[in-house]
Amino acid sequence: MTISEFAIIEKFFKAQVHKHKNVILGIGDDAALLTLPPKQVLAVSMDTLIAGVHFPVNTPPCDIGHKALAVNLSDMAAMGATPAWATLALTLPKADKTWLREFTHGFSALAKKYHVQLIGGDLTRGAHLSITVQIHGFVPKNKALIRSGARMDDLIYVSGDLGGAGLALQLLKRKKTNIHEALSAKLHRPLPRIEIGLLLRGIASSAIDISDGLLADLSHILTASNAGARLWLDKIPLNSFLLDYCSHRQAIEYALNSGDDYELCFTVPRNKQRILERKAKNMGCKITCIGRIERRKGLRLMDSEGKKSVVKPRGYRHFG
Amino acid sequence: MTISEFAIIEKFFKAQVHKHKNVILGIGDDAALLTLPPKQVLAVSMDTLIAGVHFPVNTPPCDIGHKALAVNLSDMAAMGATPAWATLALTLPKADKTWLREFTHGFSALAKKYHVQLIGGDLTRGAHLSITVQIHGFVPKNKALIRSGARMDDLIYVSGDLGGAGLALQLLKRKKTNIHEALSAKLHRPLPRIEIGLLLRGIASSAIDISDGLLADLSHILTASNAGARLWLDKIPLNSFLLDYCSHRQAIEYALNSGDDYELCFTVPRNKQRILERKAKNMGCKITCIGRIERRKGLRLMDSEGKKSVVKPRGYRHFG
Repeated sequence: MTISEFAIIEKFFKAQVHKHKNVILGIGDDAALLTLPPKQVLAVSMDTLIAGVHFPVNTPPCDIGHKALAVNLSDMAAMGATPAWATLALTLPKADKTWLREFTHGFSALAKKYHVQLIGGDLTRGAHLSITVQIHGFVPKNKALIRSGARMDDLIYVSGDLGGAGLALQLLKRKKTNIHEALSAKLHRPLPRIEIGLLLRGIASSAIDISDGLLADLSHILTASNAGARLWLDKIPLNSFLLDYCSHRQAIEYALNSGDDYELCFTVPRNKQRILERKAKNMGCKITCIGRIERRKGLRLMDSEGKKSVVKPRGYRHFG
Repeated sequence: MTISEFAIIEKFFKAQVHKHKNVILGIGDDAALLTLPPKQVLAVSMDTLIAGVHFPVNTPPCDIGHKALAVNLSDMAAMGATPAWATLALTLPKADKTWLREFTHGFSALAKKYHVQLIGGDLTRGAHLSITVQIHGFVPKNKALIRSGARMDDLIYVSGDLGGAGLALQLLKRKKTNIHEALSAKLHRPLPRIEIGLLLRGIASSAIDISDGLLADLSHILTASNAGARLWLDKIPLNSFLLDYCSHRQAIEYALNSGDDYELCFTVPRNKQRILERKAKNMGCKITCIGRIERRKGLRLMDSEGKKSVVKPRGYRHFG
């Protein structure tokens, strides 16, 4: 088949459903033109997914499209930002119309859900499938959830439950074929916690999304905030499938160190705990208090008997 | 060697010289936070360069860093925008410190020249070197140079001269080693025409940068503006090296159809011609009038004897 990149853009990408009111000019010129609503700042984040690195090569294209946007939306959630627009740089080994249709379907369905308009990007041919998305969102001045705001005695929370995506990936690697749909979705179709991010404005003192593993990502908050932390292992919310496949000890290991869950980890001053928990309950959002910030550097894990172990985070590393 | 992506970002990318006043938060959180100056709109553009597709695999890393930013700055020039910030998604086969140092040197030198701050991005490991940059710039409301504004009888201009980058690429492919430095720079170190883009605000009726070839890119203006054009072949400004290597006919072919020159092609109403030429002369910018917009669709090339030929553009196509 022959289809030029211009025809691909026209057929698959320009026909986006959602039109965002702050877009003056979208796809099709040398640049998109955009406005920022009054009293808001612009939040931008960029993430690349590479076939075989960030997702298994046989992942359905619809899920790849979903995930490429979802991991970026997750960064907006972690900043407390309202998503607005996205750009997409797509490198393809070949122009396969079926693949493109399914990919754009997955991408667009999630974009529509969060009122995100695709405003531009680049389409190139390369030996390996690679997708870079940049997401843009709005957050009121001084309301962004940054990593450096955690203070001594703040409580540490996570949203949802942990370890599911890591377990799904391990099962896939072991060629298990009968993985439960809900577990597989944890890996392939993560849900960005946009609503929780918005709820945390004015409440959380810091936040990050868990892409590399709870300990690795919490460590970024601790480094940026110049603090340490204690976690209560029996409070860590475990994905419900974990104990079907592994011991409690292994389940904890998944929850602490496997990536791709895209839940939020955040800190909250004690005087905001009640309002946080009430708001989360009203919205039906699961959040769990798993530890507290301490002045003393390092990460201390407390087991149910009060025994302490000091750990080093082991998140995914691309190099070295 | 082992160096984590976090250490790479810290060592090579965070230590950017230029700080832009509209950056609230740069590299290092889930998202960058930015403000837009009053009465300006935001222009954003994204371009991917892949080793072996967009530049020869043996291109010096310093030139790759320069070019990755330059091709994006060229899009800002084509919109009449003032560059402000950039994001960088870099996919590397391995973490080679020497390569990284040279790449960031090339990138940062150009960023500094145009007061562009690197505000974030992503660093991943993949089998092939690939670089995606998103550039962000400002343009006063209603002053952006878009593709759809060309009107009948407008004059068509190009900046600089054409065909040099295409010639350099051909010579490289033929393993010529003694390519003149100035010619080689046309391919590896294109100069974004930011100053000309700014000059064209309020003067040009449309603009595009020439990345795929004059005819291919002018055709985008014609399509967007629902118009046709006539070009005078003897007016096309040829790169001065072309006639050292090829016939006049071949030289014209390079100038019309080879890419990578990153000059601007733009249209100007006749009543703005004098002010345009005076301003360009004052700034020392070379611009050349090469044709005019016509109502009749299609692209007509007129030779020095007044003979007409109708052509189809043959710009680079990734697929098909």
